[in-house]
Amino acid sequence: MDDGGAIVTVNSVERAFAVLRCFDVDHPARTLSSVAASVGLPRGTARRFLLTLVELGYLQLDGRLFTLTPLVLTFGHSYLATHDLPRVAQPRIDRLAADLGETVAVTVLSGEDILCVACASSQRVVTAAIAVGSRFPAHATASGRVLIGHLSPEERDKYFATVVLRQLTPRTVVDRRVLRSDVNHVVEQGWSTVTDELEMGMRSAAVPVRDPEGVVVAAVNVSLQKSRYSVDDIRYAVAPALSEAAAAITAGLRRTN
Amino acid sequence: MDDGGAIVTVNSVERAFAVLRCFDVDHPARTLSSVAASVGLPRGTARRFLLTLVELGYLQLDGRLFTLTPLVLTFGHSYLATHDLPRVAQPRIDRLAADLGETVAVTVLSGEDILCVACASSQRVVTAAIAVGSRFPAHATASGRVLIGHLSPEERDKYFATVVLRQLTPRTVVDRRVLRSDVNHVVEQGWSTVTDELEMGMRSAAVPVRDPEGVVVAAVNVSLQKSRYSVDDIRYAVAPALSEAAAAITAGLRRTN
Repeated sequence: MDDGGAIVTVNSVERAFAVLRCFDVDHPARTLSSVAASVGLPRGTARRFLLTLVELGYLQLDGRLFTLTPLVLTFGHSYLATHDLPRVAQPRIDRLAADLGETVAVTVLSGEDILCVACASSQRVVTAAIAVGSRFPAHATASGRVLIGHLSPEERDKYFATVVLRQLTPRTVVDRRVLRSDVNHVVEQGWSTVTDELEMGMRSAAVPVRDPEGVVVAAVNVSLQKSRYSVDDIRYAVAPALSEAAAAITAGLRRTN
Repeated sequence: MDDGGAIVTVNSVERAFAVLRCFDVDHPARTLSSVAASVGLPRGTARRFLLTLVELGYLQLDGRLFTLTPLVLTFGHSYLATHDLPRVAQPRIDRLAADLGETVAVTVLSGEDILCVACASSQRVVTAAIAVGSRFPAHATASGRVLIGHLSPEERDKYFATVVLRQLTPRTVVDRRVLRSDVNHVVEQGWSTVTDELEMGMRSAAVPVRDPEGVVVAAVNVSLQKSRYSVDDIRYAVAPALSEAAAAITAGLRRTN
């Protein structure tokens, strides 16, 4: 394959994943026209990518509507089955979720988002708010501020140079200097809490999770109703409980390595 | 894009997914050479696909080793958050797993495999044996025999015409006529049990899950130690409990539609 071929390859792969990604929580079923418009491709090109993804088994076509098939679950399974963090963290966050009666999650940074790799709910019927694989803009979350704070100086500068700080509620911090200052404060303090910035009425708290070498590899966070927990409740009860779980996860990672 | 472009597109996308798929439970970290050998591509071509997948965020490169990133979890999340079956089934199989003290799963047919879309374990530390996104050859499983039996006649004929019946244990049924006969028996009986065919010492049982229109859309199964359950235990206790859970899932699907 010559260089021209290489460029086609890269473009084709990017487009195929753009087509696959446009099937999300807000758009579970799409027509050819909707996909073409969403990814900005001519209909004929979009059609070839869609039919290739049907051929590969990742999409199915029912009448005029394309939808994801369960085969897409296999990628996540391969990740989860081969990484220690979700497996080690699960029993710890199950216990914390039961103790607090609230949803606890383990998240990592993925570009400008936090991404949930493990989740525990105290309720039987899990709400769709957070689940394994769900993402939220890092800047508006407690976990995100912990994770941004523990980037290397170069990575942190890159984040602040390129991030788009979307205003998700009237309270979302979108001023880079204010966010930088809060992130620095979070690193000193060892925990983070964010109120009303991702969703009005919601308060979240997070602490860093370190690997056995002391490197921050994730955050553990809890999502709370603002009305039920004050910032002092976070400081004196929730943050210490999160820190204890995080330390237990670090100890668990030490045993598996 | 002309017809030549279309062929390149399809080939590139197929190859990119072949590269991504070669990172699995048995091969969590791979070198360029290992990927090239596994998917049968020249090193230079494999390298372009790998670097494209790194650029897109699905793989990361650490030294000489490529591994999956958690971003691959987002595809499964989009499937799970937009399909009723896993959400409706979860509380039912949680209860059944607790009652039986055994791992219960909801599976669908995906090509020649069964694929787990929901899973419940009675234990805190989930074993890697079955989890959301894991796959097993349908012919050697109780769920698979239920699901093959409820294919349309054309789909069933196609399955038997093309399936490769791998011998997974000395007891795996690999004779098409024997398998066809067992599948017919399972459909008449309403439940299936398979012993020692996927793994020695393991007995599994499964029943069909129907949508509100009566179409079989999945199977619910339990994996047991052969030594702890006889076939009569399956017939008189386990299969009825599975059928009750399946009926409750059907009722739940009716309410969400």
